[in-house]
Formats: sequence, C-alpha cells, structure tokens
Amino acid sequence: MISRAVSKSPLLIRGRLLSFLSEPESTDDEASYRYETDGGILVRDGVIEAVGDFAEIGAGVGKGVEVADHRPHLIMPGFIDAHAHMPQMQVIASYGAELLDWLNNYTFPAETKFADASHARRIAGHFLDMLIRHGTTTVAAYCSVHRASAEALFEAALLRDMRIIAGKVMMDRNAPDGLRDTPQSGYDDSKALIGRWHGKGRLSYAITPRFAITSTAEQMEMAGALAAEHPELHIQTHLSENHAEIALAEELFPDRTDYTDIYDHYGLTGPKTLFGHCIHLSEREADVLADSESVAVFCPTSNLFLGSGLFDYQRYRKRGKTLRVAAATDVGGGTNYSMLRTMDEGYKVIALQGEKLNPLAAFWQVTLGNAQALSLDERVGALEPGREADFVVLDASATPAMQVRAETIETLAEELFLLQTMGDDRAIVETYVAGKPMKSGLEG
Amino acid sequence: MISRAVSKSPLLIRGRLLSFLSEPESTDDEASYRYETDGGILVRDGVIEAVGDFAEIGAGVGKGVEVADHRPHLIMPGFIDAHAHMPQMQVIASYGAELLDWLNNYTFPAETKFADASHARRIAGHFLDMLIRHGTTTVAAYCSVHRASAEALFEAALLRDMRIIAGKVMMDRNAPDGLRDTPQSGYDDSKALIGRWHGKGRLSYAITPRFAITSTAEQMEMAGALAAEHPELHIQTHLSENHAEIALAEELFPDRTDYTDIYDHYGLTGPKTLFGHCIHLSEREADVLADSESVAVFCPTSNLFLGSGLFDYQRYRKRGKTLRVAAATDVGGGTNYSMLRTMDEGYKVIALQGEKLNPLAAFWQVTLGNAQALSLDERVGALEPGREADFVVLDASATPAMQVRAETIETLAEELFLLQTMGDDRAIVETYVAGKPMKSGLEG
Repeated sequence: MISRAVSKSPLLIRGRLLSFLSEPESTDDEASYRYETDGGILVRDGVIEAVGDFAEIGAGVGKGVEVADHRPHLIMPGFIDAHAHMPQMQVIASYGAELLDWLNNYTFPAETKFADASHARRIAGHFLDMLIRHGTTTVAAYCSVHRASAEALFEAALLRDMRIIAGKVMMDRNAPDGLRDTPQSGYDDSKALIGRWHGKGRLSYAITPRFAITSTAEQMEMAGALAAEHPELHIQTHLSENHAEIALAEELFPDRTDYTDIYDHYGLTGPKTLFGHCIHLSEREADVLADSESVAVFCPTSNLFLGSGLFDYQRYRKRGKTLRVAAATDVGGGTNYSMLRTMDEGYKVIALQGEKLNPLAAFWQVTLGNAQALSLDERVGALEPGREADFVVLDASATPAMQVRAETIETLAEELFLLQTMGDDRAIVETYVAGKPMKSGLEG
Repeated sequence: MISRAVSKSPLLIRGRLLSFLSEPESTDDEASYRYETDGGILVRDGVIEAVGDFAEIGAGVGKGVEVADHRPHLIMPGFIDAHAHMPQMQVIASYGAELLDWLNNYTFPAETKFADASHARRIAGHFLDMLIRHGTTTVAAYCSVHRASAEALFEAALLRDMRIIAGKVMMDRNAPDGLRDTPQSGYDDSKALIGRWHGKGRLSYAITPRFAITSTAEQMEMAGALAAEHPELHIQTHLSENHAEIALAEELFPDRTDYTDIYDHYGLTGPKTLFGHCIHLSEREADVLADSESVAVFCPTSNLFLGSGLFDYQRYRKRGKTLRVAAATDVGGGTNYSMLRTMDEGYKVIALQGEKLNPLAAFWQVTLGNAQALSLDERVGALEPGREADFVVLDASATPAMQVRAETIETLAEELFLLQTMGDDRAIVETYVAGKPMKSGLEG
C-alpha cells in the first residue's frame, strides 16, 4: 500500500533564511540572494505559503501553529543532486580502475543484483534516506537496466514524497548477461514506467540511455523515438568523461562527427537533457550543447576519484555561448553523497585550473542553479511562496574542527565556505521534504 | 605544573592487528605486512611489551591484566602527519587565494595572534586533541614566529605524552610587523627552545625556517649554523609549492641554481629535512633531494585547495634516484586533520596523473612510511615489541554510508580502501597515545 507522507497541518519554521535570486558574481553580490537573519517559513500541505521576517509571518498566523525553531542555524532550499546512480551504493570506493574497467569490474556486477526486486527495494530506500541524511531533497537518478529497479526507486520516493527524476537504464550491448535489454524491451519498459510513474506525486521519468557505448544505433533510435513522443521528459546520459570512453564511442559510431554528435543525431540533445561529465568537450561540442540548451553536469568527486580529468566550469560559464551547468555527486563513481563535499571538491577542481568558485555561487549552484538546470525552478530551489517545502538546515559548528574555525567567522560568505570546505552530513541539522522533517527520523 | 600522562599499569589490547613491514607493491603483497585476525598487544609503561595472537599473548600475562577489547575493529599504529601548522586552525577554509596571497591575507594575520601566550596555549591544546580525534599520534608541526607558541605546543604535547616534532618558525622578512624575528633572535629563541624541550618526554625540536621567501640570507645562514651545531635535529621548511613562490624565491636568491639549491647552499638539505610540497621540482632538484636523502612531503588536500598543483608521487617513488616521501595534512592550507581524508585526496591527485596508489601502500605511508621518513621508525609506526604504544582503532562501518558499502567488503585491502575513501574522524573508534586511550576522553 503506497501512501504519500505530506504533512497536512501548517508548520512555521524559524531560523536564518538564505535563498538565491540569481547566480552570484562574487562574495559581495548582495543582489543575488535574499537573507533573513530571523526568518520564518509558513508551510501548508507541503508547499511554502509565506516566507519573510519571522515576526511578520508569525503575526499573520493563528496562535495554534506549530513552530520549528532552528535558530541560530541557516535554512536553505534542499540541495539538488543532478546525477547519481542508485544501484551503485555498494560500488563507492572500488579500487584502482579508470572508467571502462571500473564499469566492467565493479559496477556491472553490482548492477546485476538489481534483477532481484527485494534487493532493489532495500537499496532504493537506503539511497533516498542517505540523500536526506546529507541534505539532498531532489535527485536525478539512474536505476539499473531492470524495470524493477525503477519501480523500487519511484515507490520509495513516493513514500517519502520526494521530488525525483529517475529512469531505468537502457543498454543493449557491451554489458554482461543479465544486464542488457533490447531496443524493443528497453522502449517498452521505459514506456510502461512512464505510464505508471511520471507525474505521480512528485515523480518525473527520465529517458536514460546509459551512454553511446552500451546502446546500439537501434536503441539510440528507440530512445530518440521516446524523446519525440514525450518532449516533457528529461533525458539523462553520459558524455565525454574519459579519453578511452570517447575513443570507443567514436569508433562505435564512425559516421558521427564526434561523441556529442551521436546524441545530437538521435534527437537526444535539448533543454531537458542532462549530460553527465562533459570533461573533454571540443569547442564544437560545447557549441552544440549551448545551442541546444543541454545541461553539462559537473561531478567533481567522481572525476577526481576515477582520474577522469578536470571539468572546466569557468570556461563553460564564461565562454561566448554559455553552457547550462549542474553539479552532482555521481555516486558511486563519486565518493560522497554530500553536496557540501561535492562543492568542496568542485572548488579544488576549479582551483587546479587557476580559477575560483565563490561560495555564494557554489550554494546557488546546488539549490537554484541545479533547479534551473533541471527545469524544476518553478517548483523547488528557492524559498518563495508556492514553491515546494524542501529545506536543509545547516550548522557551521557541527564538528569540533568546525567549531574552532567558526570562532572567527564574520560574514555569510565565510560561513558558507566553512560549511562547504569542512562540512559533511553532520552539518545537516534537519532535512525537510514537502514540509516534513525527515533527517531526524532516520536511524543511526 | 607539567606532568606526563603515561599509564603505569599494563594493558592488553585486543582486536584485528595490522602492521607493515615494508612498502606494499600491490594489493596482493602479503609479505609487506603482518595481520592478526584476533591479535593482542601487551602494553606496559607506554611501550609495546609483546604483540601477536591474542590467546598466546594472553596466556603469558597474569589474570589481573586489564583487557581493552576492540573486536571486530582494526588496530594499526597511530597515524603520523608529517607537516601541519598549529597556528592555522582558524585559517582552514579561507576563500579564494593562491599561496602567496593566502599567506598575506589570511595566514599571517592569524599567526600574529600567537604573540598572546594564552591564545597559543588554548589553540595548541585544541590542535593536539584534534589530531587525536582523527587518529594521529605524531605530527611534525610548525608553530608561529613567537617563542611562546612553541612553548605552548611542547607543553601541551608533554601533558599528553605525545611524540611530536615541532619548532618555532624563523622568518625575518616579507611578513608583517609582529611576525618577524631577526637572524639573531631567531637563532637565540630556537636555541633556547632546543635546550628546554628537545629530548624531553617524547619531544623533538625542528629547526624551522618557514621558507626562503621569508628568510634573509643572514637568517638562512643562522639556520644552517643551528643545523650544523645540532645534526640530530629535524629541519622543516617549504619547497616548490606554487609557481609564483618559486619565481619569487629564485629572484630573492639570484646566485642560486634553483629553489632547492637555496636550501642546499645553506646546509639545510639532508636525511632529517622535511620539505613540504615539492610539486614542481626539476629533475636536478629531485636528484639533489635524493642524493641528500631529504624528504619530500605530499600534502594533497592543501595542494588541491590552494590550486598549487599535482605532486607526482609515483614519479618520485619510481625514478632512478628514488625520493623519500612522507604524507601530511598541511593544515591550514590543508582542509582536514584526517590522514584518511588526506590519503583519499592523495589517491585522487595520483589518479589524475594516470597512476594509482594501492590502499595497502596508502596505510603503509601514514604509519611505517611516515615513521621512516621522519627517522622515527625505531620508536613508532609499527606494532613491534619495544615500539611506543601509539595506536589507532578503526571502524569501516562507522557511518550509515560506510555501513551499506561494507556489506560487500571481502578483503583487507577493500576494507582499507573503504576506510580511506569514505572514512573520517567517526571511523576512529579510539586513539592510544603511549598506551593510554585518548580519543574517548575528549569532549564533543
């Protein structure tokens, strides 16, 4: 029996509030955000009804409204993870391989286990709880090739009333037995999942060809057909992560100009397409992504762990034709569920290229920035009336090491940078999903 | 009143024991370590009296001996951090600068506060407790220019009976008022500190010219004189971290062949010299370090955070003239006190260069490897009779994310890699210093 967990009675949440309005250009860009030192968010039926100064918001509501007082902590929109693999929770920290060997040696064997629906259900629940524990309220997730794995994840998300985007992976070659579909079954299973789950609760389906290496031309055509039949859907796949991958993809599709052109040819670029990695793009490929308004997804912990390379975030943001960029964990190539840890590694990847990512921009990226990249900004990513009530409550003194450092913090930007550089799941005091406090209810 | 905290009554510690014998060449190199699945360590007067199978060790001791049972956890020699800055606890996570600006804008202002002996004492205590919390039992640490900062750190280490190497920084130029000594006062203060602290308890003094940029030729000569008068002492300094630093150092010493030659000229290379960073060394410089048996200290979180560059660990280990290498946090350029987090970042730095560091080698590095690099391997770094009783007790299921992953762990190498990739201070169940459990006694 599936039931949604929306809280029906109103709740007034109190704390310091931070919500972005636009991409911050520097640590001094005060026009890019709204900050309330004693703020209130009135939540009803999982949605923000009012937000602002606590006294003002409080004056407008009846005496009986429950108040969740999180002072002195900082409340922001829940974090968004734009790329993660649910079936790879037990692949994190697999040693010693670059992308293609890592897939063959570790990932594919782990994913074969998701033929077992009970395993899929157990891991899907762990996966969403783990995201909540780390302050993430929305994810764009890959399931395994098995329809049951997507059923499990959608069911778990519906139970938690989480806004997620997910899809069953389509892959019909270059994968072991038990982990391949066919062009027809991949299409049929995706179609059935779309019918059953897309638009239910807060769920969205994403057409999910894993990457060009594991899909035949026939499957790419079928994925393109699905996309044409369902222009409202997201598409998620991988692009230009590693040199050996690029070479193999181009060898498998010799008629295409380059790796990006494979996806473009089959109608898989566009404003709702999320391309994981995009590390080694040529200028031509970057232009194709920009022209099609496709999204390049930055996965720093994964790119470092697998030695894939350095995503040139500032080049993509500053070039003539700007790219839409999202940030993501890429668990299990990525090594941590936390968007704080992710942006700390992101800062380092950018620093190695002689650039900096200012802390306001980093927190914009994982909230409003990712919401925009996922075309979800009318629903989540900001503390605004009418937006869904997904929040994260942050404590920059959560650990002894942070406490010592926090003594000398004076500005909001310093607080954010401390959270990003030293924070982990302990810095997440609470995670609200559709207005309901979820982290504090988890075991362990 | 200073008193050492050595535990006098014997203690029998039980758990899985891992201690390295040599540098592991692969994850299969079983000859490189000793592993006891049910091991015992008998500790008396802060020293290991016997180590081996628990039943055998237990049979040899009287009934009244206290047993600390850490099963099923893994016990290793305490971690060693070969380079950290005590006065930089409140500098971690300072935004947006490369090395020289980072020093001028953040580090030097923070270090001026250590003219105040009470501030120095408070932070010195926090610093050692923080290391203990993260499983580190020995550190080579920089203090500030102020003699009182070194007094504070040595006093705090003596109270905890920790084996540390430390020294007051010598710097007589290119630093603000209140943060410069003179060639003579730097020499005199160092000399006084050596007389008072070196060899007391488990303390060692390190001659500590910060780096060539902040020492005049006169001060470099005085540092060389100290080194000649005290060949038993360590020397610690910085070398080849960042391109602007290298250029400035070479400009300040135009008669020297290169940056390394500056230190070599003043008699500051040698088997007890610890050179922090060594990222951009020429082959000639690497040869000088190799010929002099100097140590190159790898500081991955710092090198990534400041965007300094990638330490070529495998080149240094595999070149014709091998370099002695240590690993270190470099707090506060480094962002984490944990040697687990450090080696995770180290793995990534090495992966970006197309190489891998196997997990056995990583844990060798932070125990026996660092002990050898610091010429302390007759005292610490291994579980052997006669070695000092510094241990770390590790739990690879310490967090919910690790628990899910640990379900599929089968080998010791996998367990170590999981600890390194996902572990933090929560994975440190206990830290023993001179036979005394110290972490569990800390607040917070």
